This record gives sequence, structure tokens and C-alpha cells, in this order.
Amino acid sequence: MSVSAGTQLYEFARQLYPICRSITGAGVRETLRLIGTRAPLTLHEVPSGTRVFDWEVPLEWNIEDAALFDPDGRRAVDFRAHNLHLVSYSEPQEAVRTLEELSPHLHSLPEHPDWIPYRTSYYRRNWGFCLRHREREQLRPGRYRVSIRSSLARGSLSYGEVVIPGRTREEVLFFAHVCHPSLANDNCSGMAIAAALAQWLAGEKCRYTYRFVFAPGTIGSLCWLKRNQHRLPYVRHGLVLALLGDAGPLTYKMSRRESAEIDAVAGYVLPSIDPQARVIGFSPYGYDERQLCSPGFNLPVGRLTRSVNGGYPEYHSSADNLTLIRAENLQQSYEACQRIVAVLEGNGQYVNLSPKGEPLLGKRGLYGAVGGMSPAQREQALLWVLNQSDGSRALLDVARRSGMDFQVIREAATALEGAGLLRAVHARAAPRHRRPAIRHKATSGAARRERKARLKRGRKQ
Amino acid sequence: MSVSAGTQLYEFARQLYPICRSITGAGVRETLRLIGTRAPLTLHEVPSGTRVFDWEVPLEWNIEDAALFDPDGRRAVDFRAHNLHLVSYSEPQEAVRTLEELSPHLHSLPEHPDWIPYRTSYYRRNWGFCLRHREREQLRPGRYRVSIRSSLARGSLSYGEVVIPGRTREEVLFFAHVCHPSLANDNCSGMAIAAALAQWLAGEKCRYTYRFVFAPGTIGSLCWLKRNQHRLPYVRHGLVLALLGDAGPLTYKMSRRESAEIDAVAGYVLPSIDPQARVIGFSPYGYDERQLCSPGFNLPVGRLTRSVNGGYPEYHSSADNLTLIRAENLQQSYEACQRIVAVLEGNGQYVNLSPKGEPLLGKRGLYGAVGGMSPAQREQALLWVLNQSDGSRALLDVARRSGMDFQVIREAATALEGAGLLRAVHARAAPRHRRPAIRHKATSGAARRERKARLKRGRKQ
Amino acid sequence: MSVSAGTQLYEFARQLYPICRSITGAGVRETLRLIGTRAPLTLHEVPSGTRVFDWEVPLEWNIEDAALFDPDGRRAVDFRAHNLHLVSYSEPQEAVRTLEELSPHLHSLPEHPDWIPYRTSYYRRNWGFCLRHREREQLRPGRYRVSIRSSLARGSLSYGEVVIPGRTREEVLFFAHVCHPSLANDNCSGMAIAAALAQWLAGEKCRYTYRFVFAPGTIGSLCWLKRNQHRLPYVRHGLVLALLGDAGPLTYKMSRRESAEIDAVAGYVLPSIDPQARVIGFSPYGYDERQLCSPGFNLPVGRLTRSVNGGYPEYHSSADNLTLIRAENLQQSYEACQRIVAVLEGNGQYVNLSPKGEPLLGKRGLYGAVGGMSPAQREQALLWVLNQSDGSRALLDVARRSGMDFQVIREAATALEGAGLLRAVHARAAPRHRRPAIRHKATSGAARRERKARLKRGRKQ
Repeated sequence: MSVSAGTQLYEFARQLYPICRSITGAGVRETLRLIGTRAPLTLHEVPSGTRVFDWEVPLEWNIEDAALFDPDGRRAVDFRAHNLHLVSYSEPQEAVRTLEELSPHLHSLPEHPDWIPYRTSYYRRNWGFCLRHREREQLRPGRYRVSIRSSLARGSLSYGEVVIPGRTREEVLFFAHVCHPSLANDNCSGMAIAAALAQWLAGEKCRYTYRFVFAPGTIGSLCWLKRNQHRLPYVRHGLVLALLGDAGPLTYKMSRRESAEIDAVAGYVLPSIDPQARVIGFSPYGYDERQLCSPGFNLPVGRLTRSVNGGYPEYHSSADNLTLIRAENLQQSYEACQRIVAVLEGNGQYVNLSPKGEPLLGKRGLYGAVGGMSPAQREQALLWVLNQSDGSRALLDVARRSGMDFQVIREAATALEGAGLLRAVHARAAPRHRRPAIRHKATSGAARRERKARLKRGRKQ
Repeated sequence: MSVSAGTQLYEFARQLYPICRSITGAGVRETLRLIGTRAPLTLHEVPSGTRVFDWEVPLEWNIEDAALFDPDGRRAVDFRAHNLHLVSYSEPQEAVRTLEELSPHLHSLPEHPDWIPYRTSYYRRNWGFCLRHREREQLRPGRYRVSIRSSLARGSLSYGEVVIPGRTREEVLFFAHVCHPSLANDNCSGMAIAAALAQWLAGEKCRYTYRFVFAPGTIGSLCWLKRNQHRLPYVRHGLVLALLGDAGPLTYKMSRRESAEIDAVAGYVLPSIDPQARVIGFSPYGYDERQLCSPGFNLPVGRLTRSVNGGYPEYHSSADNLTLIRAENLQQSYEACQRIVAVLEGNGQYVNLSPKGEPLLGKRGLYGAVGGMSPAQREQALLWVLNQSDGSRALLDVARRSGMDFQVIREAATALEGAGLLRAVHARAAPRHRRPAIRHKATSGAARRERKARLKRGRKQ
Repeated sequence: MSVSAGTQLYEFARQLYPICRSITGAGVRETLRLIGTRAPLTLHEVPSGTRVFDWEVPLEWNIEDAALFDPDGRRAVDFRAHNLHLVSYSEPQEAVRTLEELSPHLHSLPEHPDWIPYRTSYYRRNWGFCLRHREREQLRPGRYRVSIRSSLARGSLSYGEVVIPGRTREEVLFFAHVCHPSLANDNCSGMAIAAALAQWLAGEKCRYTYRFVFAPGTIGSLCWLKRNQHRLPYVRHGLVLALLGDAGPLTYKMSRRESAEIDAVAGYVLPSIDPQARVIGFSPYGYDERQLCSPGFNLPVGRLTRSVNGGYPEYHSSADNLTLIRAENLQQSYEACQRIVAVLEGNGQYVNLSPKGEPLLGKRGLYGAVGGMSPAQREQALLWVLNQSDGSRALLDVARRSGMDFQVIREAATALEGAGLLRAVHARAAPRHRRPAIRHKATSGAARRERKARLKRGRKQ
């Protein structure tokens, strides 16, 4: 990927930025439509009222216009100027209020008087405006007219999936949340990178099946988890993608297991791409790893960001805009993902077919003929792979133990396999298709059709 | 406990200080009587000659008076002036000896010429005097009269127990040795703190049963172990208490296991009370952890001191007196014990009853309604407890992993349990009452009566 | 061993130095004959053409004379001046070549123009000369006569074994390679030390059987492995000995397991002998640990050197001569080996026969009678051994945990065993004699006779 790739990522983030997204509604659908222009996306709809574990899919929210009119009738706070001005999921409202009565419905940031905060009220009916603290202080006492032309009605929650089938049913899961409105880093950056990865992988031949989920935070990942419980045993690795365009160092947050293969792979790859890269421990707050790594699922899924949520001043404010993210940061984040994919794909386990002593590499053209000199790096890699390949170690373990580059070790394994000295140990057989422990309630037509097709395939097998 | 609590501890230590204790005899009984004024103490007597594992309870020793008279007939060394002047367990003696003949029976400290050393000869019949080296050097040649009016006769070894029953039969054991004569830190400090803990816990409702043993060192703990072998499987945690009044930092010595819960709890609590606190590895020398942690018992019992045995110059000399210990040190030691008890009591294991994804905390009033802001510490604690409660981790593990205070984690667990989201995992069922592998020989009347009563209870169960 | 022992080691290395060794031929036999004058060595011969795992024993190589004659007919490169001048295993050659044609057959070191490099071509027929780069640059263009009077013919590969039987069949294996020509550190030093160890152990009564193998590198250890597969289960510990005379720090390279007892023992012993000593991780390049630690054998064998292979500038050149090695270095290396043997021999596991509480040491004369003073180091060692002897820990574990010297711990165990308080836990029963998985082909007469004798013994058992 050339430098212009970073520019393409930035351009797509810019395209996504103005849309007023929330956890449901037209903004999410428009976002998924745009992503679908890049990669083969399937749209899923989960009806309002669907029970999802301890939760319920809320009414669908859409917004036409909203403003707070000052005593002079001017739009003192205007949704049309910035979609952060309205508390997300604000219920419809037409009312007149004094400034004092309005106070609990106004949100501002005294410590950052020029930024509009981002606030939501998904699960308790409420309404409110967010505004610059500097502007709030200039509001004169008097009677203000509130006009919120939103709708809260039965509809559905939308999410999208891109699935790139691989040689095996075992899956790598990428997850990006699509519910934040005009916040560039959080998460236009993550959506842009996930879409580009999907586009790239659609053209590659892979060992793993790659699944990209674009869904609203929390309730969206819960919906996906509920509908895909039968698939979870196939999820071998995963990454939540978010906050990938700012200037912070690449930061990998470990899965709840902290010893999953993705934890080792990300911990190995990141420092080679960003010397400042950090690996941080798991914690139960953050993005959708909260759900994916809850104790009932405990998926081997980590998270890649640059700065972390809450870890930069512009977080969840209008200052998280298109000047905060940069093409070169997006590109570096994207390359980290590509490298992680490459190591996951190549991280096989092998068994040495000539394990008693070293095999004679010279007669196979793999080793120099004149003795007495130290072997080249390539020859050292051959010896490392042969010595360590007892079926219990993956190539990344060999790279770590030898201190050699993964790619060199990988190439040595390929050469030895070609010479008949090594055999790949097939990863443990994928678990049999199990019926999910919790049955699906009837949901959207698409989901029903999908399930029916699956059952039919099942009978034929 | 207010500052005056430290004063109370000091006052009790002062009361205990003058008594001439040894491993048997009137001094121990008087000490136990005083402790019994603070907490409901049961006195146990083990007759001389009783076999205790590889040992035998020695004859009971009592002392009336002892002195070494110089050639002028003056009391050159006088037991009435300081009970350390006599080697403990000195056999009765009336004799005249030259200074040279006396030499093997005189003990002094050339490097600390103003201190009287503490010496004993429990298991080989012998006699001797301990004196300041400065005074020893002034003894003129000549004939000295030795007069030791002690008795060594069949009697018994005394120890005391305070038992505070809890909701379960599982026990926390506190052990303080009561055999040292006028040595303030070793162990008037430990006895005072153990007595105060017993007094405090007698007024608390606890999960664990608390057992305080006040017994002579080594032979006393062996007697207790022999008589309580059937109880040992219930001992879940324990602490030997000694040397708790000097100015040294709080020092926890790990149990032989080094991975017992008490090791984790003490290691967590101490630094929060004393920034200089130390945790040291197990070693087989010290106080009664030598017996409690011998390989045949291997109890999960650690030891709390400030300075360690042998670790301060005044150790085992007359300089270990009431000026060495201070009320504030005693109080800090006491608070450490209280905090350890609190963590042991609260260190439950839980299972999340809604483990698939996060439960919706907002609808249960446990989480703020407006989204977009970082959750408060209390909300973070809820997420940590929910995420980690898979039945395999205790709350202290959650506190350590999250970096949050144990108390905050504990309160989150209580709130979640109250909301029906968490269930306590009952610690493994207490082992059935097993007959001890080694039978008791007939011992004191009190012990016989106790055993009879136990058997009777057993039949009724 | 006195300082003169270092001198003796040096003298033997000096005796071995001039011989022109290779992986087969008269030089190896002469070397083994000299070693046999020190210790009871058995000579083994493996015929050319014998299949050895993936390898085959090559034709036997012998050399009478070799030279490169310049256009004036002078010996420009002369094997008689230094045996490194000829590439080892050079095939017979009588030819006239221009300087340019000669170039691929000439080897020199531009970065060390005064040193002759060491080069071999065992497994591809070839020939060549090694020379000082300074001399090479002075060769005038013209026609040179090549004369190599070597022979490559059916014969055999020679190796030697010294076996010192111990009380058990369990073995400690020492391996020294004998294939390098005039290179003093690599490996006259290792051969001299191995021979001296064998000589020493022949006069000791040992728990283990000690086996010393003197064999050519790689193909020699493979031959030994093939012929001794039935013995490998008895190899409990081992050391490859090489590069033991230079000024580098003692360096232990761990076995492939990295957790073998030899790894712990060497890691414990070395710092006590050389404060600069290093322990390095396993790697699959080096000396015969490459074969002994290949995944099909994975023997608990480490390697002792000073500098490592390739780790000093003189490595594999004529500068690795008798001025590079020194008597005091050889002696220190030898003492390290002796100390490792002593710890291996003494590193027993014991079980405390009086595990409930401490046994009364005083009545057994093991403990001072007067109490109150800190016990002496010897008494501390007794307590440590008693406390830790639950059958799961070896004495080296006790030494490490206690921080006490192994020898003091060892003596305490002996005293406690003598007092009936400790019983040695016999190491796991030696595995039954198993037929090797891979059958021997008929090899030398000596090997056949040995096998026949073994079978006869087997029938009698």
C-alpha cells in the first residue's frame, strides 16, 4: 500500500464524517451503504423490541431537525450546524422553557469552552442540547423555545457484515462500531480501515475466513453475538478497530484471556511498525470487547487503537474532527492490521519428519557446501525451525525464541516443507456445528431465511 | 480504633512485662489469667511426660528465688532484680564454686556490656546465670555461693484458647507465644495484640471462626497441634503474632506454601498501612510457624512481626524492655491485623448470573443514564466484578488486576449481589469430621471432659 | 587439583595440537590413542557407507602431503608447514592451473591477513588450499602446480568411549569433538579436560555411570546416537565440552529443555567459580548439542565453553593456537566440571521421617543445648532440609531457596540421614532395557561383539 493508500483511507473517513449516526436509524443505514460500495456487505436488521440477552433493541430513532431558539427567536443551538448539538436519542419536544429550567438539558465543557460535547440517552427517555461553554455563558435569561423534530418508533437496528471465505471455517473477526455521529477518530477511522481490510482480503487467498462486523456499539455487538452463537466456536482470533487516525502510538489492548494467539501476534507485530507501540492489559471498559470478552463469551479478541478511549482531550467532543486524524496515521494503523493478518495466516505448527539429529541439508541444496564458516541467517533459520518443530510450537514461538524475524522463519519453514522435511500440523479440527444454547426468537426476514438455508445445508452434510 | 487504642495495647503489654514466664509454670498461668480478663479464654493443661510427636512435655518448672553470692556474701547476681538473670529451667542448686568453676554457667554479652542476655535450657538439665558483661568483669576471684530455689516436678504445660465462632466452621488461627519472661517486644507485644483482636472479634459477626492460641513456643504449639489434628483441615488461614511493638517496618513472612490466600492478603494489605512494609520468604527458623508449617502439617499460616527474630540488637536481652516498644507501633500492627481480617472476610468468589455480554446496569439504577462520559470509579468497579466473576477468581484478584481498592471492589460485589446479578460461590465444603490420625493419650481432666463432650455431640449429629 | 593440574591439562592439549585430525582417518585414531593413555578408552569403528539416520558415513580420508607449487616450482602453500593449509577432505589432485583458475580453490581472510582459515568439504567432493591473505596477494600470475596426495577410500569412522560404571545404570554423558586439526581451543582444550575428568572419576565411587564420548563432530555424534539408542533413556545429564582454554568467561549453554537438572546445576555452580560466568539460552547451532538435542532425542545435555563458537576473532583460524589457551583457564574450566559432577552426585531427594513438627534435634546431638541464641549455620541447614524434605524437592532446590551453600545443605542431609530422620527417595526407577526403535545394521566387529554380549546378559536377567 503506497502513501496514497493513507490518503484513500482519509478520504473515506471524510465521506463518513458528516453523517448523523446513532445506534439505530437512517444515519447507520447510510453509513453501511457507503461501506458496501467498498466491500460485499450484507445488511442485517433486528426489530425494535427484540430481546438480546439482558437487553432489548430500542425503538428506532430518526431526526429531522432540532434547535433551541433564544428569546429573540434565533437558533441559539442548531442541529443543522453540528449534529453533536443534539443529545443522541432525544425524544421529540416542542416547549418553551426559561434558561434555568433548561439547565439540566444543556451540556457543555467548562474546561474546553470551544468544544461541543457528545452525549447520548439511549435507554432512558430524555432530551438535551450540547453546546460550546463559551456560547452557553452568553445565553441571556429569558424564555427559550425547544424544538426537536425526532421520531422514536418501532423499526429496527441495522448492522452489516462482510464475510471473506477462507480455506477453513475458522474465523478472524474484525469489529468496528458505527454508532457515533460526527466524530472523526471515533470511529470514522475504524470504519475506514475495516472497510479497506475487507476490500484487500476479498482479493487474497486465505487460510482463515474473515468476518467484518460493522455495528452500533454495545447493543449492536450484543445483537451480533446473539444471532451468531453457533459461530463463536469458530472465532479463533479477533480485533476491535477504533480510534486509528490520531497521533497517539499504536496501542493493543489484550483479550480477556491475555494469552490468546492474537495477544502474542499483536505484541510481536506492533513494535516492528511503531517503536512507540504499547500493549496494555485487558479491562472491562472500552468498546465492544466489553461484550465480546464478557465471561459468557470470552472470545480471543483484542482491540487496536492509537490513543485509547478517554485518553485524549478531544475524545467525545467536536474537536474529534477531520483535523485530528491524519492520512499517515491511518496508513500505519492499516499496515499494522495487514501485518497481523500475515502473521496469523503464516503462524503454522510443524513437525520435523527427520527428528533424529539434523537432516543433511547440503544434499538438498539448502546449506552451503564448504564448512568452517558460520552459517548465514537463512541457514540458522532452517536449523531453528527443524529443532523446534515437534508439533507443540507455532512459528511465532520459533521467531521469538530465536530472535529472528517471523518472515525469515516462515520462509525457512516453507523451504523445509518443500524439501519434505517438515509437515504442517493441522490445527485442531473445527468444532462440530452445535445448536446455540439459546434459541433465536423470530427476527427479521433476512435472518429467518439465513437460518432456513443453514438448516438445509446441515441436512445435506 | 483511636490513638488511645495504642495506649491500651501498650498498657496491657506493660502489665504482662514483669511476669517470669517460661514454657511451664506459674508465670504462664498468671499470663493466661490476665489475657482471660480481656477475652473468653479456655485454659488447657498437658501433663508432664505426655508424648507429643517426637517430643515429651517436660517437668513443670517453678522458681522462688535465685542468686549468686559473692565472696562477701552479697547478691552479685540477683533474680529478684531481673528475671533474665536466671537461665530459664535452671535446676535447683545450692553450692559453692570458684569463679573459674562458675564460668561455664555464666552468660554475658561482651559486645553489649550493659545488657543481660536471655538464655534457656529446657531439654537438658543445667543451671546458670545471665549478667551484664560489665558486672561480670568486676567479679573478683574467690568462692561464690550459688543458690537456686527452683523446682522441677511433675505438673503440666498450660496454654489458652479463645474461640469466636463464625458462620462457618472454617477457621482463622492466630498464634502468640507466651513463654518469654521480661521481654517486651518478644512477646508482650504479640500477646497484647492477639488479646485485643480476640476482644474485638467477639463483638463482630464473622464468616470465619477465629481461634486464638496463647501457648509456649515450640512445645506449646506441638501440644496444640497434637490435640487439634482433627481441626487442622478447617484452618483456612493463620498468622503467628510476635515482635509487634518495635520501630521496624511491618514484616510479613510467608507461609511455607508461599501461595496461600493469607500470603496474597497480607501482601496486599501491608503496603497500604506501612509504606515501608516488607514481605519476606518462608524460612524454617523463627517462631511457631516452624511447627505449624512443618511438612507434616504445612498449614496456610504466615507470620506478622515488625523487626524479625534476631533482627534487632536488643533481641533476647534485657534491652528488649518497655522503652523499645511504642503505643503507635502497636496500634499500626493492630490495624494491619484488623485490615487483614476484613479482607479475608470479604474475599469471596462470585459467579456472574448474566455472563453473556454486560447486563443493563442502568435499568437497575447502578449506572448513570447519560452516556458519553467516562464512568465513575464505582461504575468501573461494577464492570470489573461482572467481567471477572466466572467463579475462578476471588475479589482480591479483581482488586489486584483492576488496580482498584479492595473495599471499592467489595462494595461493587455487594451491590451486584443485591441486584441479583451475582451469586457467591460457596468455598469448598468443609471436610467431614475425621478422627485424628494419632490418638490422644489420657491427659488432663479438662481435656478428657472436652473430648467426651465432643464425642457426645458427634453421636447426636 | 593444584595449579600444576592446569599445567598438565595444557601439556596434554599441546601434545594433541599438531595432529592433523579430520572426521575420519589416521589423525583421529592417533588422537584417541593418546587419550587412551590417560583413561580406559574403547575404540569404535563405523564402516564407510553405514547409514546413520539421514546421513551416511563418508569414505575415510587420509593425507600424505599437499602443496601448491608456484611458477618457480617453490611450495607457495605447504601442508607440511601447517595442516590448516589444506581444505579438510580435499580429494587427490595433480594438476596445473593458472592463478585465476585456482581462485575458487583458495581461501583466505582479508580482515585477518596473517591468519590461515580453517575450511572443510566433507560431503561434497572438492579440494582447496587455505592461506594467509598477505601471502595470497603476493602470488604472481602464472601456472601453478597443485599436488594433493590424499586418499578417499572405504574404511571407517573412529570414535572412543570411556565408561566409568557407577552404583546405578543412570548415566552422565560428556562429549568432546575430536575432528578439528591444529586448533588449540577448538578442541584440544575440550579433549584434554574430558580426558582428565575421566581419569579422575575412574578413581572415585559414584552414584552415576559416567560415559565420555570422543568423536568427530556431527557425523560422530550421530554414529554414537544410532548405536546407543537403547541407552539414551539412561542419560540423565550431560555436557558437551569445547573451547575451554581461552580467556573468555565460563559460559553454559542450556539444554533444549532449558529446565533440565543439568541446567539448574550448571547455573548454580558456575557463578561460584567465575563471577563473570554466563548462562545462555539453547540454540540449534553450535557443537554436538545440535544432534544430542535434536527433537527426536532431546537429551538433557548442555554445553560448557568459555568463548562460544564464532565468538572470538581467532575462531577457526591458525590464530587458535597454543598461545590462545592458558593453563589457568583450563584449570578453572576443569574445576567447574568437577563441581558440577559433585552437585549432580549429591543432589538427592529426601523425605522427612518425622514430618509433624520439628524433631527434637538436641537429644540426637545435632543441636546446641542452650537456647536463646541464634542457631549456627549448620543448625539452620538442618532445619531447612527437614522442612523442605517432602520428597518433591532435591537438595539443590533447598540450597537455592535457603540461600545456603549446596555443600552445607548436603552435609546436613547426610547428618539427618545418619540420625534416622531422613530417607533418600530413590530417583525414578531406571527404564527397562528397551530394544532400540531403529535396528543396527551390521557394523564393526567390535560393535557386533558388544551387542552379542549384551544380548547374552539380557537372557540371563
